[in-house]
Amino acid sequence: MSFYSKNFKVGVLGGGQLGRMLLQEAINFDVKLSILDPSPSDPCADIAHEFVVGDFNDYDTVLAFGEGKDVLTIEIEHVNVEALRVLESKGVKVYPSPDILEIVKDKGLQKQFYTDHGIDTSPFFLVENADELASKSAEFPVMQKLRTGGYDGRGVQALIDVDDLGKAFDEPSVLEKFVDFEKEISVIIARNDSGEIKSFPLVELEFNPVANLVEFLFSPATVTQEVEVRAHELATQVVEAFNFVGILAVEMFVCKDGRVLVNEVAPRPHNSGHHTIEASVTSQYEQHLRAILDLPLGATNSIQAAVMVNLLGELGHTGPVDYQGLNEVLSWPGVHPHIYGKSETKPFRKMGHVTVCASGLVEAKALALKVKDTLKVVSC
Amino acid sequence: MSFYSKNFKVGVLGGGQLGRMLLQEAINFDVKLSILDPSPSDPCADIAHEFVVGDFNDYDTVLAFGEGKDVLTIEIEHVNVEALRVLESKGVKVYPSPDILEIVKDKGLQKQFYTDHGIDTSPFFLVENADELASKSAEFPVMQKLRTGGYDGRGVQALIDVDDLGKAFDEPSVLEKFVDFEKEISVIIARNDSGEIKSFPLVELEFNPVANLVEFLFSPATVTQEVEVRAHELATQVVEAFNFVGILAVEMFVCKDGRVLVNEVAPRPHNSGHHTIEASVTSQYEQHLRAILDLPLGATNSIQAAVMVNLLGELGHTGPVDYQGLNEVLSWPGVHPHIYGKSETKPFRKMGHVTVCASGLVEAKALALKVKDTLKVVSC
Repeated sequence: MSFYSKNFKVGVLGGGQLGRMLLQEAINFDVKLSILDPSPSDPCADIAHEFVVGDFNDYDTVLAFGEGKDVLTIEIEHVNVEALRVLESKGVKVYPSPDILEIVKDKGLQKQFYTDHGIDTSPFFLVENADELASKSAEFPVMQKLRTGGYDGRGVQALIDVDDLGKAFDEPSVLEKFVDFEKEISVIIARNDSGEIKSFPLVELEFNPVANLVEFLFSPATVTQEVEVRAHELATQVVEAFNFVGILAVEMFVCKDGRVLVNEVAPRPHNSGHHTIEASVTSQYEQHLRAILDLPLGATNSIQAAVMVNLLGELGHTGPVDYQGLNEVLSWPGVHPHIYGKSETKPFRKMGHVTVCASGLVEAKALALKVKDTLKVVSC
Repeated sequence: MSFYSKNFKVGVLGGGQLGRMLLQEAINFDVKLSILDPSPSDPCADIAHEFVVGDFNDYDTVLAFGEGKDVLTIEIEHVNVEALRVLESKGVKVYPSPDILEIVKDKGLQKQFYTDHGIDTSPFFLVENADELASKSAEFPVMQKLRTGGYDGRGVQALIDVDDLGKAFDEPSVLEKFVDFEKEISVIIARNDSGEIKSFPLVELEFNPVANLVEFLFSPATVTQEVEVRAHELATQVVEAFNFVGILAVEMFVCKDGRVLVNEVAPRPHNSGHHTIEASVTSQYEQHLRAILDLPLGATNSIQAAVMVNLLGELGHTGPVDYQGLNEVLSWPGVHPHIYGKSETKPFRKMGHVTVCASGLVEAKALALKVKDTLKVVSC
């Protein structure tokens, strides 16, 4: 059955902004998406071909949702993996596979996977609780990351010295040694079921230090040719080790000594690939569809320089959302807003993004800074 | 009220492919579209924020649909204008205005409008029926166009000599003198309610001679600088004469003697602007939204050369659709399919389009010809 057949059903676990942008691209290929999300007011609710309200973490809900689908995919990794395994055994194609999701969802297993497969990553320790963590204080400074349940900057914090022991999470965690990095980069890479692999040119990320969220993305990254080559090698190594199908975002550190280390992955379209919608021949969302439908992958070259600015809810604002300054930024050429359709804002909530395109990165950066200063997500 | 407010309602008369592509862009601005169309299986049915089944030609239906909307627009001009007038008098913003639609829907009034406003167009005659037409046979060859009801190549035919009198339409028609043209071009131009005007670089159209439908579009058009300037002047003259708000497609002839003549307009996003989705800074659909919401218009410059190929139903094929060769064309870089989601094909039905982008037009043309030869819309 062809992917554009009206009886061909693609299910997506999660109906947030990633699902929404996937949906926009699915329309071009006439792929019908059925979306499962607990919130009936989520970004996909009104526009999905089919929208099912339900918990993607619940075994029975996921099982019932997945029955009869041809392909199942995710836009969030915190889903019920057991139900996906059963569905896979019944012949539903599940991308990425449940085994990969199980590893990626647990940052401890994920780090272990890299070392087991000889993939360069920063040194780490696994601890069960705050007591065990205290015994590792000689290794400080470290980043403490909850093994499971962290998302969008939550469940991650720096522990600089013993004074920080009081704020440590008392849960199973990964402690990562501080990496003396020069910059953080990301490679968006795709593999289809036939094994074709293509990666997008690498991008550079700038994080909001308070929220630990991506604030700016720069494309192209200003790195040496060696780093560019090495990053693609590493991303390919990861995607092959996982036997991954779909889009995989591989976040990496470029160390001051020139080494490139894998930090962590997202097994789905990712914030660090949003700019591909306007700035690349193929967007990461179209590429994800091509990969999971086992179609030829699209060309990944950039057609414009781009800076992506996340629109995060302003501090001190909670409630019905307003986008101050939106009309003004729309008067500037090359400014592409994406408003996710969330009705309520709160501090640091991802409410949208803006991609600024220009013929060169310097120009795009200057305009992106103006956008950042002008456009504010507030409550009204 | 802001355009992204959940209470801000934009209504669209018509739910075909133009509505579908408008919807894809509306998602970026979080504009909620309510769509009226008689067919519950139309391209917008499953994905519109709200889809109302009803006849956009029926007075009561349009009136009921438009009540309470903030803005009403169209994706087809064959709609009930009287109901739109009433809605406008009640404070609904209707773009384009009912007065313009009344003129544009009637190709006789449209031609008269151009001559009344000193806008260059080809010589024409109005006839009421076949008898009156026969009295004009000394003017042959002419194009006979039904004054009302023609669409997508229907209601248009060439009458070369008196032998063609037998096939002449026996209805009120425009007879246009044959224009000795070198090429057909189109300018997509937008005007917002504040009066800001922007036009896209002009494109060249190649028609299927049997169906009288656009088969290929080339961007940029290969014309002289004089023609480029003159075409934009003419398009601006038309949009100002109409006091138009929204996207207006102005089709023109470039005569062998260098003159540029307005042929006809479409008061909405148009087939000759599809390439703007991938090849321009701003797409015609986003531009239409900006115009009708009275936002600043987007930049219109091209970022890539492009050829658009319409996917027309093959002759001899009627029934459930299949897209032969789609997987193959997807393996070529820069090939962007848009499948409109119509379940049934018939000869010359517009089932989708493909935009081929490349760094230069020669390369894009070569690839587009391969697409045309490979991808076939057939029944399965």
